[in-house]
Amino acid sequence: MTSPLSDSLVTPRFCGLPTFMRLPLVTDLTGLDAAIVGIPSDSGAPYRSGARFAPNAVRSMSVMLRPINPSRNNINVFETLKIADVGDSPVVPGYEIESLQMIEETIHHIAAAGVVPFAIGGDHSVTLAELRALAKIHGPLALVQFDSHSDTWDKYFADQCYSAGTPFRRAVEENIVDPHHSIQIGLRGSLFRTTDISQSVDLGYKVLTTDELFRQGISEVVQQIAERTAGLPTFITFDMDFVDPAFAPAVETPEAGGPSSREALQLLRELKNINLVGCDVTEISPAYDGPGQITSLLGATVMLELLALLASYRTNTRV
Amino acid sequence: MTSPLSDSLVTPRFCGLPTFMRLPLVTDLTGLDAAIVGIPSDSGAPYRSGARFAPNAVRSMSVMLRPINPSRNNINVFETLKIADVGDSPVVPGYEIESLQMIEETIHHIAAAGVVPFAIGGDHSVTLAELRALAKIHGPLALVQFDSHSDTWDKYFADQCYSAGTPFRRAVEENIVDPHHSIQIGLRGSLFRTTDISQSVDLGYKVLTTDELFRQGISEVVQQIAERTAGLPTFITFDMDFVDPAFAPAVETPEAGGPSSREALQLLRELKNINLVGCDVTEISPAYDGPGQITSLLGATVMLELLALLASYRTNTRV
Amino acid sequence: MTSPLSDSLVTPRFCGLPTFMRLPLVTDLTGLDAAIVGIPSDSGAPYRSGARFAPNAVRSMSVMLRPINPSRNNINVFETLKIADVGDSPVVPGYEIESLQMIEETIHHIAAAGVVPFAIGGDHSVTLAELRALAKIHGPLALVQFDSHSDTWDKYFADQCYSAGTPFRRAVEENIVDPHHSIQIGLRGSLFRTTDISQSVDLGYKVLTTDELFRQGISEVVQQIAERTAGLPTFITFDMDFVDPAFAPAVETPEAGGPSSREALQLLRELKNINLVGCDVTEISPAYDGPGQITSLLGATVMLELLALLASYRTNTRV
Amino acid sequence: MTSPLSDSLVTPRFCGLPTFMRLPLVTDLTGLDAAIVGIPSDSGAPYRSGARFAPNAVRSMSVMLRPINPSRNNINVFETLKIADVGDSPVVPGYEIESLQMIEETIHHIAAAGVVPFAIGGDHSVTLAELRALAKIHGPLALVQFDSHSDTWDKYFADQCYSAGTPFRRAVEENIVDPHHSIQIGLRGSLFRTTDISQSVDLGYKVLTTDELFRQGISEVVQQIAERTAGLPTFITFDMDFVDPAFAPAVETPEAGGPSSREALQLLRELKNINLVGCDVTEISPAYDGPGQITSLLGATVMLELLALLASYRTNTRV
Amino acid sequence: MTSPLSDSLVTPRFCGLPTFMRLPLVTDLTGLDAAIVGIPSDSGAPYRSGARFAPNAVRSMSVMLRPINPSRNNINVFETLKIADVGDSPVVPGYEIESLQMIEETIHHIAAAGVVPFAIGGDHSVTLAELRALAKIHGPLALVQFDSHSDTWDKYFADQCYSAGTPFRRAVEENIVDPHHSIQIGLRGSLFRTTDISQSVDLGYKVLTTDELFRQGISEVVQQIAERTAGLPTFITFDMDFVDPAFAPAVETPEAGGPSSREALQLLRELKNINLVGCDVTEISPAYDGPGQITSLLGATVMLELLALLASYRTNTRV
Amino acid sequence: MTSPLSDSLVTPRFCGLPTFMRLPLVTDLTGLDAAIVGIPSDSGAPYRSGARFAPNAVRSMSVMLRPINPSRNNINVFETLKIADVGDSPVVPGYEIESLQMIEETIHHIAAAGVVPFAIGGDHSVTLAELRALAKIHGPLALVQFDSHSDTWDKYFADQCYSAGTPFRRAVEENIVDPHHSIQIGLRGSLFRTTDISQSVDLGYKVLTTDELFRQGISEVVQQIAERTAGLPTFITFDMDFVDPAFAPAVETPEAGGPSSREALQLLRELKNINLVGCDVTEISPAYDGPGQITSLLGATVMLELLALLASYRTNTRV
Repeated sequence: MTSPLSDSLVTPRFCGLPTFMRLPLVTDLTGLDAAIVGIPSDSGAPYRSGARFAPNAVRSMSVMLRPINPSRNNINVFETLKIADVGDSPVVPGYEIESLQMIEETIHHIAAAGVVPFAIGGDHSVTLAELRALAKIHGPLALVQFDSHSDTWDKYFADQCYSAGTPFRRAVEENIVDPHHSIQIGLRGSLFRTTDISQSVDLGYKVLTTDELFRQGISEVVQQIAERTAGLPTFITFDMDFVDPAFAPAVETPEAGGPSSREALQLLRELKNINLVGCDVTEISPAYDGPGQITSLLGATVMLELLALLASYRTNTRV
Repeated sequence: MTSPLSDSLVTPRFCGLPTFMRLPLVTDLTGLDAAIVGIPSDSGAPYRSGARFAPNAVRSMSVMLRPINPSRNNINVFETLKIADVGDSPVVPGYEIESLQMIEETIHHIAAAGVVPFAIGGDHSVTLAELRALAKIHGPLALVQFDSHSDTWDKYFADQCYSAGTPFRRAVEENIVDPHHSIQIGLRGSLFRTTDISQSVDLGYKVLTTDELFRQGISEVVQQIAERTAGLPTFITFDMDFVDPAFAPAVETPEAGGPSSREALQLLRELKNINLVGCDVTEISPAYDGPGQITSLLGATVMLELLALLASYRTNTRV
Repeated sequence: MTSPLSDSLVTPRFCGLPTFMRLPLVTDLTGLDAAIVGIPSDSGAPYRSGARFAPNAVRSMSVMLRPINPSRNNINVFETLKIADVGDSPVVPGYEIESLQMIEETIHHIAAAGVVPFAIGGDHSVTLAELRALAKIHGPLALVQFDSHSDTWDKYFADQCYSAGTPFRRAVEENIVDPHHSIQIGLRGSLFRTTDISQSVDLGYKVLTTDELFRQGISEVVQQIAERTAGLPTFITFDMDFVDPAFAPAVETPEAGGPSSREALQLLRELKNINLVGCDVTEISPAYDGPGQITSLLGATVMLELLALLASYRTNTRV
Repeated sequence: MTSPLSDSLVTPRFCGLPTFMRLPLVTDLTGLDAAIVGIPSDSGAPYRSGARFAPNAVRSMSVMLRPINPSRNNINVFETLKIADVGDSPVVPGYEIESLQMIEETIHHIAAAGVVPFAIGGDHSVTLAELRALAKIHGPLALVQFDSHSDTWDKYFADQCYSAGTPFRRAVEENIVDPHHSIQIGLRGSLFRTTDISQSVDLGYKVLTTDELFRQGISEVVQQIAERTAGLPTFITFDMDFVDPAFAPAVETPEAGGPSSREALQLLRELKNINLVGCDVTEISPAYDGPGQITSLLGATVMLELLALLASYRTNTRV
Repeated sequence: MTSPLSDSLVTPRFCGLPTFMRLPLVTDLTGLDAAIVGIPSDSGAPYRSGARFAPNAVRSMSVMLRPINPSRNNINVFETLKIADVGDSPVVPGYEIESLQMIEETIHHIAAAGVVPFAIGGDHSVTLAELRALAKIHGPLALVQFDSHSDTWDKYFADQCYSAGTPFRRAVEENIVDPHHSIQIGLRGSLFRTTDISQSVDLGYKVLTTDELFRQGISEVVQQIAERTAGLPTFITFDMDFVDPAFAPAVETPEAGGPSSREALQLLRELKNINLVGCDVTEISPAYDGPGQITSLLGATVMLELLALLASYRTNTRV
Repeated sequence: MTSPLSDSLVTPRFCGLPTFMRLPLVTDLTGLDAAIVGIPSDSGAPYRSGARFAPNAVRSMSVMLRPINPSRNNINVFETLKIADVGDSPVVPGYEIESLQMIEETIHHIAAAGVVPFAIGGDHSVTLAELRALAKIHGPLALVQFDSHSDTWDKYFADQCYSAGTPFRRAVEENIVDPHHSIQIGLRGSLFRTTDISQSVDLGYKVLTTDELFRQGISEVVQQIAERTAGLPTFITFDMDFVDPAFAPAVETPEAGGPSSREALQLLRELKNINLVGCDVTEISPAYDGPGQITSLLGATVMLELLALLASYRTNTRV
């Protein structure tokens, strides 16, 4: 019987239960630096549902990943940080508000133990619950949002306040995100209203569309992210529809014309000086992936880059 | 440009928007006998979501069907009944209770006009909303439920009362179904608790498991259904997991070991003396179908058989 | 490099080009008893196209089959008959009439050499071309048609005479099939017009619906087929929509409620006293199969049963 | 019941019949500026068939799009233009020449009413029929063709003149396209004959291969398109195989090595001074898409960019 | 965070890592009655590989199952037996002989602790390793094999002795199975050689083909199984190709014409007086399943029936 | 019946058995310049198996390709070189070492006849067998490896020496590759150990990561390849995971963040002065492709570019 975090040169990666990167599955948070946690909720999804199956789909593909990151001086995330998979938050499918409460409790439980949560969503509304939990501990957070949509609408169907289209307006209203130290990157595509982008700016966010991202170049954007977050406790949310549907077909609301996975990963690999207190990868709906499951593989890879970002930050700030 | 209800020997069936069987899409209910209505809600789904896409998936495959039913004396349903497709009910995804209210209003609007609603679900919780609407007009209804599960549990996740697992308990509690004139057919598979089946009996339902269905034979079961419903205003709900997953892979909670589509259709074709005031086909989640889309085709075929049942009843009772 | 007709206990079945059952691919017909020939035409398809890819899809799955038939006294079809794969007929996609001419030439070329053609269609209109070729040699043929549809309509879109919906009316009109020695088995489902079935009877065909097939039982039906064809030169056409869509999802016009593959194979295995001069398996559209490709596997299995029928007949009539 | 062109912030996009972007489905052309029309014909397809299902597949994914275009000064195409979905042209599957005649009539009917047709193909042969209809009204047209193939071969199988490989030779011969004001962009891949590209030049077309497109850059290419078409009545045909198969796997003849969807959309978004009198998106074969349906989504997005091009041109030329 | 064996009426089944039926994942075997163990090896697969992914695929679908078995007096397998999921055996992909050794060790480790192994294969060659381990403890075993193939060939490719086609000849030769108390049920389909079936009989096995199974009926077959195994320590191996490909498309070597899942489950549910010391479900290759994953669901259901068989036996023999 | 190497403007490409580009299938090597040979072995695959089906999948998509290469002065590879498809090497699935021996014999048989083998793998371990065969004739080879992984690990599971992770260490140890004239291009992604890349350098290979490839640009890299191989007998191995999973989802171990197909093809098209004595395309696992089969199409396109490289070299060196 295989033990978790097996050496994948010794035991084949398809052996054993697929925790994230074959990490131990634990309930005791003591001593952990970071915890992988699934948020299997899709009650906020306005179009395609199915993100409830994303945590296990991402875990399944994560077994193909390896611990050392050549883009960050060959750092070994598992030697630098103590990381475990802590399973999934409970949710109440079909009950958005009740689900957000349970998710908030789960994330608060993790963060209150001094552990940085790395969450696998879930539709994008789950980020609001995560931010609520973390703001209780850290105060209003700097937010870095990779996304093809702003998700700052006011109301959605039947004037409901909570959905995947509204979390980053709610977060400002609830004073759990400081928009003046926050940035939205990757907006593109057609708009409902001419204010779809400016509404984020009006809330205080800095906004870089996909066009601006390519016009400025990755180095310049990385610089702006560092300046914007300014060393404050920061949350990174990565909506998988940030990349083009060719690279992530299995998302809830795909938007043609985005960056490639190489471009997205390069952006993440160059991030620096981010005081990361939490992050998530959201909006994967596995039933829309092909048999190659490339969306889940990319989601797992994004998660690993975020782990390396934390490992690198901890290493640098320790010195 | 193709007109609705085209003759499929003249214009190919892939031409034009796929309303149900290429019927006219109308908003005016005047003069209709029956209305096809989509109920694209999956907020009550405890496992696989995605039934929100079922109405259009069933419509797409329904274009392969033809109007005349050789099992019922070559009745032409469209000459016997005036039928239209009236589009979909609005819903609020992720908000089960609000969705049920909207669905109830939609069905009531149809039924209040003297039109029999033929609903394409939706997870099975939508049937509760339909029953509420119809009971306002007809009083407590006789219910014929084809289903591999009883759906008479009391509470589901986080003690919520409304989900696909509870509608037929709620319906008895709300006095909108008369269990003593109702019957559940097709229960099978492993159980959560030893009372999963007896809880239905305790509520007053007659229950025939899949085993009993095969032991008694279709003729005997048809006879029991007629006796049980006794000419009362009757609702037929057809959960697609009634049939084996080989015949309906795209359901929310598949249960191995069920009848074939031939056996299921034979059962429907032999039904008689049912005073049908409403019906639905539920629990199809199209993303889980293969490219052949056999679940949606079977769902459309079931719906056509129910239309023929009404047409046949009207013809017989007119005389 | 693998040689054709390899022993699949020696060389794995996935090695080498997939001819039908790994038979030799030949152009010289001399000495052959039977020839497998592909008819990759779908210009007659009124709904789903794609049968142009069926010959190679059926060949691919046929490599899983083995030469000996336990239902027919362990006859080895390849020891009894000299069989080869002769490749595909040319066709002109999008030009139905021109395609039928080419197919007729191909089949005539085979049959004129004294070889029985075993054709892999192709939409069902290709059977007309095959019958034309064979009737030139044998005169009007007895026809055994396994099919959920009659395919005896008069005209189809824009009053065209040739499509998958019309071949067996044309065949009677052209005097290439003798309807009074022919039988259609398996009709079912909803009808365009009340005459959809009776129009076949009016042409002279004997018709057994799926319901009648099950009412009478396989032995009785086998008996009727033998009596109807009466030892005359006979063509068997097997439309894959004869079986239920669960067993053959990848057909051009699926019809719910059919026999299982076990029931269909049993019917074929019990056929006897058929003077087979040609046959085909039609209407497979591989893009609609799931990854398990069960439709193509069943199509290949049906073809092998037809080969065994010929082998058995030859063996018996030789004595 | 949902009304067309619903606000997708109020009613979920999966509710109601999927017309293009939930536009009204009309038969009366009065007052329209532009009409979305499906051309469900694949009789000209030399390899993969199935484009007959493209119009409804593109419509289904188009519900995810929104009316305002940030690349063109936030123009709202539906406020600028009066647009409706007019359903599909009739066709005769398997009868290429008859189908082209019906398509020509459909497009002529639209254009004669002063409405610009936005056609969803169909294999690329349908463009010939569209050009015939429009040239009757506007005279020989300037053509902008985005395509990885030239489609200017002379004959195809069995010396047939009409197929997806020949329309742009026929169009020159029939004097319905003025090649000297026309341009083909995106040719790439291996060739049948050394003249595959030069045959277009010999006919008078300007040709930019994919290599030249990248060498020159998008701005330069946009400039050349404007100069080439010179304000003349122009038709834009977008063959989906212009983009790389990763971005559009569901095309009839994929060609590896093309632009990304971001690059293709950028090219369309920068087009200007085009006097658009008609356009189409062709060659999508939905059965070859994965469950994410990214080809159909991109096809719908391309169509919306073409609508914005017209809206922008009308706005500018009104002033 | 969810705990194993959660009540699926409280926490949704998609929450948490999918162990078999959400059982605890343990390494300590103390006190267990039965252990679910994955055998992710496909080095013996002569045609389709991929069974290495079967253990986790079956586990994923098993979360839909419930603990109580209505066919066996509502026995609750988890109250009757102490069961856990012990993860997977290590294997060496591409090295059949080395893999069999590792599997034997894994199973011996379980069985030596007095725990009955319930193994999820793996291609059918893994059963040989399991039998070796169990025979060390129990002596030669009675074998009940559900399978469409005999798997008693002598050699396979390149005269190798170990593959999915040979285990039950090897088992007799190694004296770890007593063929005179063993039975093979379900053989069908075409044969390599006329001895494919008789070779099993020659080894001492009793053989019932699929035809004989249906001729005799389930009750009679159940009776024969009980008589044949005669209370001896018995191993049940269930090759998923026993059922028809419509019910189990994702198998390594599908064989058309088998029983339905309802018939297969009925057979298992009526088994009695079996002294079960081990069992497995083999030959599932998940990549060949459709999105509905019905093969894995049926595999999990078969496993649960085998657990109930043991629970029932233990209950009866305790008395 | 179609003959091989048909003109695809005359006979549709879906007609006839799909040899590579419809080339003749031969067993006699006399007079050939190059031979397409399938290597259907996946016993070395550490994660996803299934490459045994790659040769026929690549052949199937290769029928869409055409003989003339516009990137190399419109060279017609089939007029410049005499090429045939010689079928597949035998293999022993599940027996890695025995399979490598058979593959070596197959390749040696081809190369000894003076024919350059163009092999369609197979997992990457098959390249070791090919190199062994070729080194017997040419001595130690220069190697150009396109790959996201180094495949120079020492041992894999259970200390086995032969797998897809080890061939290029073995090749150096066996002195069949000269690492000082060899280059690995495209390494990327997370690492098992910090030495994953440096271990290749330590063996003597030049290594260019994906990052370095983009930093240097294609022209510079092409130059380095030419210098490194220095006119020596050279083998090119193209692991399909070199490109991003969006362009090649169906690979055994996908790695996010790679080049596009356009970039990869451009690199191949600019290669020059390579004395090619053998090559392969490896690691395609067709079951993981979507229905569009873009991985196999790209694999076939890569193979055709390699044929053009040889054709071009022969043309140039003849002068």
